[in-house]
Amino acid sequence: MDRLDNTRVRRRGVEHLTCVRCDGIEIGGGKFTVIAGPCAVESSEQALAAARAVEKAGAKIYRGSLFKPRTSPYSFQGYGPEGIEILSSIRQETGLLVETEVLSAAHLELLAEHVDMLRIGSRSMRNFELLKEVGKTDKPVILKRSMSATLEELLLAAEYILAGGNERVVLCERGIRTFETYTRNTLDILAIPALHELTHLPIIVDPSHSSGRSSFVGPASKAALAAGADGLIVEVHPSPADALSDGFQSLDFPAFERLMTELREIAAVVNKVI
Amino acid sequence: MDRLDNTRVRRRGVEHLTCVRCDGIEIGGGKFTVIAGPCAVESSEQALAAARAVEKAGAKIYRGSLFKPRTSPYSFQGYGPEGIEILSSIRQETGLLVETEVLSAAHLELLAEHVDMLRIGSRSMRNFELLKEVGKTDKPVILKRSMSATLEELLLAAEYILAGGNERVVLCERGIRTFETYTRNTLDILAIPALHELTHLPIIVDPSHSSGRSSFVGPASKAALAAGADGLIVEVHPSPADALSDGFQSLDFPAFERLMTELREIAAVVNKVI
Amino acid sequence: MDRLDNTRVRRRGVEHLTCVRCDGIEIGGGKFTVIAGPCAVESSEQALAAARAVEKAGAKIYRGSLFKPRTSPYSFQGYGPEGIEILSSIRQETGLLVETEVLSAAHLELLAEHVDMLRIGSRSMRNFELLKEVGKTDKPVILKRSMSATLEELLLAAEYILAGGNERVVLCERGIRTFETYTRNTLDILAIPALHELTHLPIIVDPSHSSGRSSFVGPASKAALAAGADGLIVEVHPSPADALSDGFQSLDFPAFERLMTELREIAAVVNKVI
Amino acid sequence: MDRLDNTRVRRRGVEHLTCVRCDGIEIGGGKFTVIAGPCAVESSEQALAAARAVEKAGAKIYRGSLFKPRTSPYSFQGYGPEGIEILSSIRQETGLLVETEVLSAAHLELLAEHVDMLRIGSRSMRNFELLKEVGKTDKPVILKRSMSATLEELLLAAEYILAGGNERVVLCERGIRTFETYTRNTLDILAIPALHELTHLPIIVDPSHSSGRSSFVGPASKAALAAGADGLIVEVHPSPADALSDGFQSLDFPAFERLMTELREIAAVVNKVI
Repeated sequence: MDRLDNTRVRRRGVEHLTCVRCDGIEIGGGKFTVIAGPCAVESSEQALAAARAVEKAGAKIYRGSLFKPRTSPYSFQGYGPEGIEILSSIRQETGLLVETEVLSAAHLELLAEHVDMLRIGSRSMRNFELLKEVGKTDKPVILKRSMSATLEELLLAAEYILAGGNERVVLCERGIRTFETYTRNTLDILAIPALHELTHLPIIVDPSHSSGRSSFVGPASKAALAAGADGLIVEVHPSPADALSDGFQSLDFPAFERLMTELREIAAVVNKVI
Repeated sequence: MDRLDNTRVRRRGVEHLTCVRCDGIEIGGGKFTVIAGPCAVESSEQALAAARAVEKAGAKIYRGSLFKPRTSPYSFQGYGPEGIEILSSIRQETGLLVETEVLSAAHLELLAEHVDMLRIGSRSMRNFELLKEVGKTDKPVILKRSMSATLEELLLAAEYILAGGNERVVLCERGIRTFETYTRNTLDILAIPALHELTHLPIIVDPSHSSGRSSFVGPASKAALAAGADGLIVEVHPSPADALSDGFQSLDFPAFERLMTELREIAAVVNKVI
Repeated sequence: MDRLDNTRVRRRGVEHLTCVRCDGIEIGGGKFTVIAGPCAVESSEQALAAARAVEKAGAKIYRGSLFKPRTSPYSFQGYGPEGIEILSSIRQETGLLVETEVLSAAHLELLAEHVDMLRIGSRSMRNFELLKEVGKTDKPVILKRSMSATLEELLLAAEYILAGGNERVVLCERGIRTFETYTRNTLDILAIPALHELTHLPIIVDPSHSSGRSSFVGPASKAALAAGADGLIVEVHPSPADALSDGFQSLDFPAFERLMTELREIAAVVNKVI
Repeated sequence: MDRLDNTRVRRRGVEHLTCVRCDGIEIGGGKFTVIAGPCAVESSEQALAAARAVEKAGAKIYRGSLFKPRTSPYSFQGYGPEGIEILSSIRQETGLLVETEVLSAAHLELLAEHVDMLRIGSRSMRNFELLKEVGKTDKPVILKRSMSATLEELLLAAEYILAGGNERVVLCERGIRTFETYTRNTLDILAIPALHELTHLPIIVDPSHSSGRSSFVGPASKAALAAGADGLIVEVHPSPADALSDGFQSLDFPAFERLMTELREIAAVVNKVI
């Protein structure tokens, strides 16, 4: 991986690990930080109900997309920019930080002003023009691995952001595309120790997109914690069967609560603080 | 492939095939159209030399990128917008049409005004916001398959452009990512007959990116023609060893001339007109 | 590919190319040799009808499996050893050479005695104990690439046979497993020039298993010829819809005849003799 | 997965789970059974040293291959049949059960007589003739997933053994082949919950072959336990740097001991008994 020489993302020695701070919340540094919420903001009721539930169960940051990159142009494309107000009211009411996906430079200013954390989705990991723009902001960023990116490519995509001056990048493993189709993607669980060897940036896991089935979200989440991840980004919906996107892989509230309980038990023995 | 039902890209019956017209040049309709030129415009001398050579050998459209999406932020990122003048002078001097890659909506207006054909690179195939913008222009577009896209996903990406009102889309197979690393990508040669079954849009092949080695560009090109492709987009450089990007897979002028000769011989027996 | 240094399969210089001889028939050396027949011998009538048809259309060697490695134990497992007599009568009546798959060392002696050419199927490419046994026979062997083998692994598998003293090995590209499922496998068309660079052994293509659909067998075959292959192994069945295995990808007689005609036309311009 | 209907491997209802018994040792049924030992038996000293160490650390079954399927014919091919005595003396001295890989029907009788458990390696998963033979024995069998097998194909391979009358099959996830090469294979961690949904057979994980690096064996093992696996098969060597095969991925004794300690702590909170 010669191309990583002299990059800012490269880990330099055993002690060199970054803890990304986002207001009071930390990702990295011995914490196991859970980000949770619906795939997409669908209505203020749906979004707020999910926020209350995930806050109560122990999540620290709320996920909720306003713009959805969908395979088909005829699928639900997201609530749009007006959803910003919903995210603001969630922050106010629940005290959760809020993060959302940025799909286009055209929305960047608006989103960066109103949310606490930005997310670059897997389909945008190779949108280097967007990464350059995000590198100019002062917002922490979750950078999701493309379903066809090697670890080196993920790290060089992160380098686009760091090179712009924004050092608060959190990497996210969300499954890669392989020949196996029983799961939506193949969760590359060993990307976690591999990335910890290669970079000082924190690494979280998306157990929802990697598995594509709500019944696998628990095993994926526990495996991620056991393998050394610094957190999760999980899809939780008040009523998965009615979700406008990704319902099949979303947890309902009781399932998310049970998962958080199980994670706390494992965290205690693997030296992580939830 | 249920998601293709009721799409504009779907082929409807044996006769239903689109010939994309770009000024006097046709892609589809029994033609085998060769697009050729350097990976990137590096200087007016380099660009123009390549243009003269490919025109003389029989190419109809000039390829030349001004903006390069590179895995590392520290690699050559392209000549930039000033290269537009170089492309214009190439059109004027050689009579070739010119095409170039559009990476970002920010450059779209400029590029659409000055070039004859736009290209969406494989890394941008899932940049749906960009596809929507390109769908609003009146320029023919080459849409390259993402290295991890299924055929259905490629077609639904094309649908984003057609849904916007721009019907002149040419699909491009450029290799997919697999476990085999001896070639840069794996040229999915059967994507050609498969796409001809599924869609009425023309299909061209990029033998350069799919193979990653100049010695394989000939076999890839001839196989594409024999398998029914409607054309090629080939990288040709005055001095591949000195290229700022992709030199390893670029043909020099004599190699490109030889290839064109061989293609004409095969075209004659497979009922295609070069 | 350091592991290929000092192997017998490694190509040594431009002139170093092997032509495998099998009685009067040659594979390599400027010939394009077509091997054809049903996936499996089902009855003497079916097997003989196919033999007459492929001989008439220009095939030189008959393919017909007696033992079938099937994903499910409840699928048709092949006609079994009694089919040997059918193969013998085909040789006698049509003058075709016959080849068949060897699945197990237990059948090797019987098969080696009665057929002209052995075939190691893709599922057996890593059955090194079997390769060692085949290396001790004096029969020419077709070695099919495993659906997950790199080119280097295919060549090292061939080396097992050569190391045993049997130098008459023909490599066969038959598609690799990738994320794309519209075709049964992904035909790695550039394996042909790549293998010609790496080894002196001849290379044929299986357009039937790689595509999985009879409508793609033509394009795959023509692409293989154009890309430099030394031959084909094609599935042909008197009545594909009734086949006990692989009917979906088998050609009927008229389709095979048309294909042979088209191949002859292309062969004439790419300097191959059918 | 229609082909799994009416198979013996198919899980039928929540309660339907098999615990494979191998003398006093159980795999499945709430146990987390660790199988450990060197990749290959190299000498009686090396083999016995490893046996003592893994027994002391808590392994229940000893792994040690006598026949090695190697990519190159010029790599170490294994100690051979004389190693049987070494395995017997290990059983006697340490009380561990012993398992070994069966590569060929020719060795089956000998191995079945002298070892407690057979192993079908990933390269042999599609050697259906061998599976049929193993199905006729009365020995418990570990069946490793081929690096290119879907879960359905793994289960149908297991069905070959069950169909022969041998019901004591333990499935093993050992990594699949993908485009990512930083790890030797990609550990498909979600194969564990997926297989638990599909089959009643127990599932263990090989953290050594899936990762290819000793530093990843710990994370892989802990993730497997957290995701619900029924055990592990781990490579442990007295001196990994001197191993004749797979040294890069083997644990030394202190690392294995530490791993067992960590696994016990996690097992306690996920309701598994080591």
